[in-house]
Amino acid sequence: MSSRLSEELSRYSALCEERMHDILDVVDTSGINRESMSYSLFAGGKRLRPALCLASCEMLGGRAEDAVSGACALEMIHTYSLIHDDLPCMDNDDFRRGKPSNHVAFGEANALLAGDGLLTLAFLVLSGCGCTGAVQEIAKGAFDMVTGQSYDLTESENPEMLETIHTYKTGAMIRASVLAGAACAMADEAEREALARFASAYGLLFQITDDILDVKGSREKLGKSIGKDVEEHKLTYVTHFGLKQAEEMARRTADEARAALDGFAGKASFFLDLIDFTLDRDH
Amino acid sequence: MSSRLSEELSRYSALCEERMHDILDVVDTSGINRESMSYSLFAGGKRLRPALCLASCEMLGGRAEDAVSGACALEMIHTYSLIHDDLPCMDNDDFRRGKPSNHVAFGEANALLAGDGLLTLAFLVLSGCGCTGAVQEIAKGAFDMVTGQSYDLTESENPEMLETIHTYKTGAMIRASVLAGAACAMADEAEREALARFASAYGLLFQITDDILDVKGSREKLGKSIGKDVEEHKLTYVTHFGLKQAEEMARRTADEARAALDGFAGKASFFLDLIDFTLDRDH
Repeated sequence: MSSRLSEELSRYSALCEERMHDILDVVDTSGINRESMSYSLFAGGKRLRPALCLASCEMLGGRAEDAVSGACALEMIHTYSLIHDDLPCMDNDDFRRGKPSNHVAFGEANALLAGDGLLTLAFLVLSGCGCTGAVQEIAKGAFDMVTGQSYDLTESENPEMLETIHTYKTGAMIRASVLAGAACAMADEAEREALARFASAYGLLFQITDDILDVKGSREKLGKSIGKDVEEHKLTYVTHFGLKQAEEMARRTADEARAALDGFAGKASFFLDLIDFTLDRDH
Repeated sequence: MSSRLSEELSRYSALCEERMHDILDVVDTSGINRESMSYSLFAGGKRLRPALCLASCEMLGGRAEDAVSGACALEMIHTYSLIHDDLPCMDNDDFRRGKPSNHVAFGEANALLAGDGLLTLAFLVLSGCGCTGAVQEIAKGAFDMVTGQSYDLTESENPEMLETIHTYKTGAMIRASVLAGAACAMADEAEREALARFASAYGLLFQITDDILDVKGSREKLGKSIGKDVEEHKLTYVTHFGLKQAEEMARRTADEARAALDGFAGKASFFLDLIDFTLDRDH
């Protein structure tokens, strides 16, 4: 990772982290509910979605502060989805980010509520943020993600649904992150349209490289089980197209993501660095 | 039930029902996700929360139309909470409103997602409603409800927590319903304060009479298992105070709810009728 990208990611992550601690400190709940929400929210996530949101806002001339409520909400929604996704009735995953999953640590009922609580808290935070456009983007992304999870349950062996599943399941929240940041910076229609194209390509790049990591990564670096997709005969870009073609698709998709940013010239350096990093990532 | 109350409830219910069908018709999802969300949303609920929201808005001079997005969101959030509450890891209830619970009909994973989908859809609907005050009331109510569920898991045998649990678990959404409707009618501070007092008392009345029904009701009329609280040694207003004292508390709470409405004079007839009905309800 370039040191410039690493510094920007740290700055965005610290901003979001600090605000999420503030939110959790004052929110009206206690006991296991607070503990189980905090456990997963502060489990060392990469804060990718907040970074996309904050960077998008800054690139268009907004202040990161304008988008930080949106950034926190996106991370809370992402975290709830991981908690519910790990539950025994879903993926039944005992590890997440190198730690026991929420339901392993707190039991199923508390994990269910930790997820429900984080999803709801996200909208409680958003309801005070004053940017209706961002709320709409995030609500749409969060709803599409549920649809994607549902398609994944019923259509995960249907090759024709592979792209649709990922567009909804992973792509929608990445798109929402970029577009919520843009909404907080009062993006005009042309800016929004360019960023939507970038976000769609970047979301696909993220998913393809995620599938590649499942066969090439190591559990230590990823903090989660690997090789699961192959083991479970799950349809992924790698199991469907083969590793070589998936890598070629990733490169092509990275080019599309870069092209969408052409109009932003020098201001897009964060996103350009992120594309390079994502293409070569090992975690 | 008085025919006047019955007519008003039907009018509110029809309005909300029609709008929810419109929403589900156009929402971008399909397959089991749409089917399982619809299954529970249109399972014949009483639409109490929408009615509280719409009546509150009308009482303060607003149009029901101004509050109908809020009303639909409240019912979606209420429905998601029932779906998750019925799951095996929670109350493990196989019946709801006289039909198999969502997870019995669609399996646990789909039921989990139906709940997640309805909660998210509620905020997607709210994000377009244009009334920030209502969104805040509803987000707060929904978050408090999760806290209440969590307290109920860990503190349900602690008599000192009985009122707190119900204030969060049941009361918060009833309060949110009344106050969201008031926000849509641009309530002033005195109106909001009076309605908050009414809603707190009414929420408590609702809970006490619900506990009474668990021992006095019939499964046919309730459409759900009865006698469960006693069987599971659950702490309720009846198991803690005894039936006679619980009935006395219900009467006293009804008086408080009526008193809070004094300032609205003749305009409060819907709420006054509802208090009478709730006090004597058999379902």
